[in-house]
Amino acid sequence: MSTPSPAGAGRPSFAVFRDPASVAVVGASADPAKWGYWLARGALAGRERRSVHLVTRRAEEILGRPTVASLADLPEVPELVAVCVPAAQVGLVVDEALALGVRAFLGITAGVPDAPALAVRLAEAGARMIGPSSLGLFDAETSLHIAWGDFHPGGLAVVSQSGQIGSELAQLAQRAGLGISRFVSVGSQLDVTAADLLEDLAHHTSTTVVAVYAESFEEGQRIFDAVRLLRRADKHVLLLTAGDSEAGARAALSHTSALTAPTELVDAACRAAGALRVATPAALVDVAGCLMAHVPPRGRRVAVLSDSGGQGALAADCVHRSGLTVPRLSSELVAKLGALLPDTAATDNPVDLAGAGEQDMGSYVDTVDALLASGEADSVLMSGYFGRYGMDSAALTETEQHAAAELAALPGRHGRALVLHSMGADSDTATVLREAGVPVFPTVDAAAGALAGAVELDARPGRWIPRPAPSDRPPRDYWETRAALQRSGIAFPEARQIRDGDQLQAALAELRGPYVLKASWLEHKTEAGGVAIGLTDAAVVAETFTALRQRLGDGLYVLEEQDVRPDVTELLIGARRDPRLGPMVTIGAGGTEAELHRDAVTECAPVSAHLAREMIRRLRCAPLLTGWRGAPPADLESVVNAVVAVSELIVRYRGDRVELEINPLRVGPGGCLAVDALLLASPVRSRHKTEEHA
Amino acid sequence: MSTPSPAGAGRPSFAVFRDPASVAVVGASADPAKWGYWLARGALAGRERRSVHLVTRRAEEILGRPTVASLADLPEVPELVAVCVPAAQVGLVVDEALALGVRAFLGITAGVPDAPALAVRLAEAGARMIGPSSLGLFDAETSLHIAWGDFHPGGLAVVSQSGQIGSELAQLAQRAGLGISRFVSVGSQLDVTAADLLEDLAHHTSTTVVAVYAESFEEGQRIFDAVRLLRRADKHVLLLTAGDSEAGARAALSHTSALTAPTELVDAACRAAGALRVATPAALVDVAGCLMAHVPPRGRRVAVLSDSGGQGALAADCVHRSGLTVPRLSSELVAKLGALLPDTAATDNPVDLAGAGEQDMGSYVDTVDALLASGEADSVLMSGYFGRYGMDSAALTETEQHAAAELAALPGRHGRALVLHSMGADSDTATVLREAGVPVFPTVDAAAGALAGAVELDARPGRWIPRPAPSDRPPRDYWETRAALQRSGIAFPEARQIRDGDQLQAALAELRGPYVLKASWLEHKTEAGGVAIGLTDAAVVAETFTALRQRLGDGLYVLEEQDVRPDVTELLIGARRDPRLGPMVTIGAGGTEAELHRDAVTECAPVSAHLAREMIRRLRCAPLLTGWRGAPPADLESVVNAVVAVSELIVRYRGDRVELEINPLRVGPGGCLAVDALLLASPVRSRHKTEEHA
Repeated sequence: MSTPSPAGAGRPSFAVFRDPASVAVVGASADPAKWGYWLARGALAGRERRSVHLVTRRAEEILGRPTVASLADLPEVPELVAVCVPAAQVGLVVDEALALGVRAFLGITAGVPDAPALAVRLAEAGARMIGPSSLGLFDAETSLHIAWGDFHPGGLAVVSQSGQIGSELAQLAQRAGLGISRFVSVGSQLDVTAADLLEDLAHHTSTTVVAVYAESFEEGQRIFDAVRLLRRADKHVLLLTAGDSEAGARAALSHTSALTAPTELVDAACRAAGALRVATPAALVDVAGCLMAHVPPRGRRVAVLSDSGGQGALAADCVHRSGLTVPRLSSELVAKLGALLPDTAATDNPVDLAGAGEQDMGSYVDTVDALLASGEADSVLMSGYFGRYGMDSAALTETEQHAAAELAALPGRHGRALVLHSMGADSDTATVLREAGVPVFPTVDAAAGALAGAVELDARPGRWIPRPAPSDRPPRDYWETRAALQRSGIAFPEARQIRDGDQLQAALAELRGPYVLKASWLEHKTEAGGVAIGLTDAAVVAETFTALRQRLGDGLYVLEEQDVRPDVTELLIGARRDPRLGPMVTIGAGGTEAELHRDAVTECAPVSAHLAREMIRRLRCAPLLTGWRGAPPADLESVVNAVVAVSELIVRYRGDRVELEINPLRVGPGGCLAVDALLLASPVRSRHKTEEHA
Repeated sequence: MSTPSPAGAGRPSFAVFRDPASVAVVGASADPAKWGYWLARGALAGRERRSVHLVTRRAEEILGRPTVASLADLPEVPELVAVCVPAAQVGLVVDEALALGVRAFLGITAGVPDAPALAVRLAEAGARMIGPSSLGLFDAETSLHIAWGDFHPGGLAVVSQSGQIGSELAQLAQRAGLGISRFVSVGSQLDVTAADLLEDLAHHTSTTVVAVYAESFEEGQRIFDAVRLLRRADKHVLLLTAGDSEAGARAALSHTSALTAPTELVDAACRAAGALRVATPAALVDVAGCLMAHVPPRGRRVAVLSDSGGQGALAADCVHRSGLTVPRLSSELVAKLGALLPDTAATDNPVDLAGAGEQDMGSYVDTVDALLASGEADSVLMSGYFGRYGMDSAALTETEQHAAAELAALPGRHGRALVLHSMGADSDTATVLREAGVPVFPTVDAAAGALAGAVELDARPGRWIPRPAPSDRPPRDYWETRAALQRSGIAFPEARQIRDGDQLQAALAELRGPYVLKASWLEHKTEAGGVAIGLTDAAVVAETFTALRQRLGDGLYVLEEQDVRPDVTELLIGARRDPRLGPMVTIGAGGTEAELHRDAVTECAPVSAHLAREMIRRLRCAPLLTGWRGAPPADLESVVNAVVAVSELIVRYRGDRVELEINPLRVGPGGCLAVDALLLASPVRSRHKTEEHA
């Protein structure tokens, strides 16, 4: 069960943070307004499984248990020491513990001074610490509870870089009837990190869903590798992060960067690892509820059922907005429902019992049965009053609970999911449903959103991404970038290198107009006035060459044939090595208006041809490529090849921050041509130059 | 107080549905599982104010009160009769009541047979009915309660075309601590409509916010006129409707229609009337909570405050996503906050107390005080643990409630709003805040969404729209449409009418190339191959004219100069008379790709120049018009004039379904040119032709 520490031999395994043989709480307190009280109370709850020691300067009993004044007074060296003393004393307590042989700490206290030095002392002693500034640790499997607040056992693990958000997740889960398998507030990650603790969860039997709040992605690739491990172990990961509002604030190097918010990179990493990012703690717990259903939702087709046309229509809208579909039903199924229900009922999707549900609660059961059996929908969303009848009228309680038990048996029988929005989500009937594994939500938008999130996550198996060490020096100018892309199979217009008038004349003899003339060495050629397009004949080219040299000086110019094919669509392909999340590739609508439409799709690089094809399909402008308004369809496979090629190139280039961009890529029926390309290795290029010489 | 019925003299005023002097419930029951029981129980609660009669075939006491077998047995003619008998008996009961002189009915029973005949008998007798299929009626001002379920008195009125959604709204409101002033389920609107009941609410003193669920907009313009009345009476209207998922299903006549979902027309009507559409019942109640605050939010700048960096960051993201801003604070204010808070706190927006809140709850108060006093934010959103301390530790209850009382005094003092997300939204501390008029939400997304909705509604005063009777015959072909738009001041390229070769030659002598040739009479010219563009010289034009005539036959052709100006952006201006919601005008990104980007803004027509300018600003493609990437700015005012002109034209044209579209409108530094225009009066053109002859 225990995973060896990746930091190597000598240090304790993370098992000590799951099931220590002994625990000491230093800074325990008898005052219920103090943290030390809650830590002591929680720890003591586990004393049937382990020895629990309370350490406090005040000689007092706490919760009827004796205390000692210092760790040295204990009869044994505790395996895990929770430190909850004033910040200035933390260093002393840790040093004393290390001297006694303690090798695992949970640092609760915030604002510990001189933390880096403390980290060094811990590492030198071969000890490990979660925190400091941790809100605590809970493990339902081993009755380990050293944290503020109460936890009810269940299947949701919480690993949070913010204690409060971890606590909020646990509380919302409890309100939704979900329990907690493990809770770790990682605090300031002086030593043990979120990635460590996620890896460690892969073998945590009772955990079925993992909630992660990640604020920084310094260890981004390790975090997502841990997510892959969890996914392999059949544990779903839901990720919460901040940063949606940063988008506008960042300075963007290229169009690609301008098109991609930081959270879109996190989304790409989630898709590649098989996780789902959600926007809020409530959304996370909602989706977790669906993932933990007896039969979790799979597939995008939703049948909506209500006893009210209005509620059915609003539910269908919510399903639609969340990206799932509300398909029409076959005439056979409509006829079958018609035979079950009164004439006033609406028997297509959304199905409206129109009062029949209230008259006879069995009609809910019969209808859900027919819908789930049909195979025409992947899941049923039932929305409205069911769950509340018994709350309003005690006379209806028994009938309703009987119907609830019958409903709860249907998902298992048909292998398809049932999810409820109930106006009585806190009723006993709702409890009957939840305990049988049918999720019940208090609002219809929560129900639809949770359903959609679970379906989306089911459709993401994740993929292993090859991560060879970057080996190639990035190209230094336009000509080199062009050459590198051409070697990868991406076509450019015919071109020649031009340094003087003689080379220009020779080139003009070989190329056909109209022409484009570019100053190869400029990073931002267009903005710097280093590109002249639409040069119709030799005289205009010569004139332009003279003018450019006067303004920009000597250097490598490139004369290119201009692409003037008809029926061409402009796209953009970009790629970058994100310092935290690794190589990424983007395809988007191209040309000068690209930023306005923000029509772009990003995935972790490299991508397969299959994934590249899917990325293109996800573009809003995709219809332009497949025969828009009678135009001939573009050569899609040439775009697919270009995306794959760029995604493979970016993986090979050295440098923490490298960006590569083709904009525009002009795509027509005869294939695609890259008519401009850009490579940016700033601002860390100089460092890498040094490395090259080393 | 009472509004006369718009249906004219003789019929009772709507006052009878607010405060009847006497009520009879026909179909009352002693069985708590039956509707008749709940109606009786509710009605009896008002018997200190009015006489209440229970009518049932079974001779039984109900809730200790005597009953009679029929209305004829009553000692008086009741002012209002609630009908809750089996559907087949409804007609008989109503006829008996009419014969006795009853003039007001509340029809509860659903599925009443032969309803149109019933409507005629009611009208002939000068009687009024709410329903049938009504879920009931409640008025807190007069203790009138003839409905299923319980209602707590408060300031929210609910008028719903779906009883269940009305009921859900009331229930969610109660959970949020908001009470109900009036509840009307309009049922199938056999007689009295939602518009009637909304008008009637304008004088309902205790109502401050009106929740409307509208499913059909047959009386769309009356409904929105009623909203204007309510807005004038300082009552905010929140509208819920279904139909977001219809967008794809409709057959679209023009680009404009394809660009505009039905809910976008409702949104335009809401903006014009000063109401807000919300997507779900929960969102409606959330926004209502903010509107009912002691100091409701106004203005888009939000200061976020938390005791946790993570919760502050997520809250800022939610605020950003909901369309409000989280501005940086001035260095003076940052310094002031720095003096109040420990070094570890983050003193710019979002402000993070970083544990100081837990140490000293007064720091929440001091910080909110400083933020509200500064004037640098229009409201404060506080997110996190506050409200829950007392739930977790009784020792903290008193301190927390004291701080809550201090917090609750701040909005009134500074005239700016405070809104909370609290992990203890159901705590006693939260109740202290709510009762003092500070809204408290259980999730941060609900808090941010509610804040944004209230701010948006505050910024919508609504406007009165002139609605002259349509007087003009719509143009019949392209030439007439062109002429009509030109008379309204919209420029087209030079053109000539062409019927034969001689006219063609004469036109070629006067116009300059390249040319465009159009078959004027075709409704869908482009799709029918009736437009030829890019005709470079006279020979090509002549050839094309011959070919077009061979294919399409004789008729009115139009030869136009083609617009080939540089630096031109293509827009689309569309307008239509929606049969339910009236004239609308749309501006959007134009050209053949318009549908892909769905970049369009619609408002009720006519619009002022000021509103037209704002519509253009709201386009995603707006930056293209103001000097994009060094291009010269377009003549914006020419676009403004064109939008205003089209919006005024559509108001004048007769016909239930008329659409007018300029696509593209080519806009450059020298002004705009409409290079194609379309008028569609189908499918009701024939009917209007008949009217013309009548």
